[in-house]
Amino acid sequence: MTTLEPSDKALVPFVSVDHMMKLIHHIGVEQMMTGISDYIESDFKRWELFDKTPRVASHSEKGVIELMPTSDGDVYGFKYVNGHPSNTKDGLQTVTAFGLLADVATGYPVLLTEMTILTALRTAATSALVARLLAPKGAHVMAMIGNGAQSEFQSLAMKAIAGIDEVRLYDIDKAATAKCAANLAGSGLKVVACETAEEAMLGAQIITTCTADKQYATILTDNMIGSGVHINAIGGDCPGKTELAPAILHRSEIFVEYPEQTRIEGEIQQLDPDHAVTEIWQVLTGQAKGRSDDKQITLFDSVGFAIEDFSALRYVRDQIEETGLFHPLDLLADPDDPRDLFGMLQRAK
Amino acid sequence: MTTLEPSDKALVPFVSVDHMMKLIHHIGVEQMMTGISDYIESDFKRWELFDKTPRVASHSEKGVIELMPTSDGDVYGFKYVNGHPSNTKDGLQTVTAFGLLADVATGYPVLLTEMTILTALRTAATSALVARLLAPKGAHVMAMIGNGAQSEFQSLAMKAIAGIDEVRLYDIDKAATAKCAANLAGSGLKVVACETAEEAMLGAQIITTCTADKQYATILTDNMIGSGVHINAIGGDCPGKTELAPAILHRSEIFVEYPEQTRIEGEIQQLDPDHAVTEIWQVLTGQAKGRSDDKQITLFDSVGFAIEDFSALRYVRDQIEETGLFHPLDLLADPDDPRDLFGMLQRAK
Repeated sequence: MTTLEPSDKALVPFVSVDHMMKLIHHIGVEQMMTGISDYIESDFKRWELFDKTPRVASHSEKGVIELMPTSDGDVYGFKYVNGHPSNTKDGLQTVTAFGLLADVATGYPVLLTEMTILTALRTAATSALVARLLAPKGAHVMAMIGNGAQSEFQSLAMKAIAGIDEVRLYDIDKAATAKCAANLAGSGLKVVACETAEEAMLGAQIITTCTADKQYATILTDNMIGSGVHINAIGGDCPGKTELAPAILHRSEIFVEYPEQTRIEGEIQQLDPDHAVTEIWQVLTGQAKGRSDDKQITLFDSVGFAIEDFSALRYVRDQIEETGLFHPLDLLADPDDPRDLFGMLQRAK
Repeated sequence: MTTLEPSDKALVPFVSVDHMMKLIHHIGVEQMMTGISDYIESDFKRWELFDKTPRVASHSEKGVIELMPTSDGDVYGFKYVNGHPSNTKDGLQTVTAFGLLADVATGYPVLLTEMTILTALRTAATSALVARLLAPKGAHVMAMIGNGAQSEFQSLAMKAIAGIDEVRLYDIDKAATAKCAANLAGSGLKVVACETAEEAMLGAQIITTCTADKQYATILTDNMIGSGVHINAIGGDCPGKTELAPAILHRSEIFVEYPEQTRIEGEIQQLDPDHAVTEIWQVLTGQAKGRSDDKQITLFDSVGFAIEDFSALRYVRDQIEETGLFHPLDLLADPDDPRDLFGMLQRAK
């Protein structure tokens, strides 16, 4: 039988930006980050199952375009993501992304989705999962250095997952701080806009740095950091892009996602390639120790890893069927007789 | 000003399977392959400009999923493609694909398109471009061994680009040959269905092999190949998958797309890693010699390279504006204030 309508197999569920926003509001942003964090935790606990590779990066003067693939043997996922710090001055996002899941057994895609917003959620979910694991007991105040697109998500994920009730905001651009504070009004967080990074860190047990310059920057200097804190360093995430003074790294117990990638992209690109680091998945499975005492400085040198995107994609896939928040996209040619691609084309004339 | 409608920058032109088929019929399949072949030739001639890397493959027992990125410094492109030989028995395509172009300066995607059909066109366009370059003078008969999804495209591209007027078909499955012959009826090609591979090769100056088993296979044995032919070997395209007896390789002058990738995936995976090969782009630019005499056996050990997809994507991008054969896809979150992703999300509530 010849049909010109795409078959079920040809149609890939597509989650647009509009559908993603509807999905987030349907579930609730904090609830969704908590859900994604649970998926990340469960995937990190089966870390050894995954195909892992540093992301495939194409660098230019203006920024980077990356592909981040991984697979657990049953499902394959990848994310396309760019990082262009100079985009904001042209009214564009620094980071945009989309992602895909496919069935390993057939190679057929099963989900295509926007990931600009979803990446913000999964990054914050990862930060908060790790902060819950490593921050000092009773941590409830976070300094948020850098109040750009990621800052509200970080704040709310830390509230929902890591028990934070106060965020202290600082950005070199006061308008960014005002925007973040306004967006967090009514969230249940105590929000304090600060004039300096030092002021933001007053009384904070968790210090999150999330700035976007593609250059070696020193957002935190050594004398700014006391003992007994957890540093969540997100902004150092590509070669030549760091935020912390090396002296801080030497005083810290350093935790990373995937050392092979972090040594290229993270804060530890400033250290010897054999400097000891602990992998988060090993702390989650009990194979490695997390924080050992209240005085320690723990540092999560976060660059973002493909498995976190994979978890977020899995989470979205598990939500959309019930909610119907997707379009079927005519992405795959699927002739009745798989050898007859040409015949399908001819019959469409 | 706050708007909930996606901005222009958020909308990525998407070419569905349906639109791709309409585009092909609008342009004509032979004309479109000729056009793509011109783009490939022009990109191969500026080969040294491109970021090149062997494709990033995720192998499983059933098949492979690959990402094929490249960039010329201004435009970035990649293709997602799977190869699952066992898919056909389940009524699925062995190969499905989609692809993307992005602006290197901003990282923003500018085209998303189906590439299952487009890959068939670009593969045939590449084969025919190389055959025109390397086949003996006056070549006009092609043996087509393997009459699956790629066979009609190969035949028509060889007609349009390399001067072929007769194709001689052979497949171990007679139904595949009958399908190919029926699809080529009225194309202007003389089509001869053959009982054996030997019969198909009678009088042929170009021999195309395109079979899909993921295993070392010997589709052509040494004694089947006389002198003065051009072999266009397409089916050997991943580790463990070859079609030609090693003795043929030793008698041939071997031409490849990108040696780093072909030595892993092509027929020459059977040879020493330092066996001499010539790169097609060097023949096109005059830096290397093509066929040196009429008696020579030239072999194009084709595995498919990212630049060919890039050329095909560029070609499609250049056609769709005028024809309108695309949908604007709401793929990118693009808030008015790029730092205010969260605010955009809140306002959508």
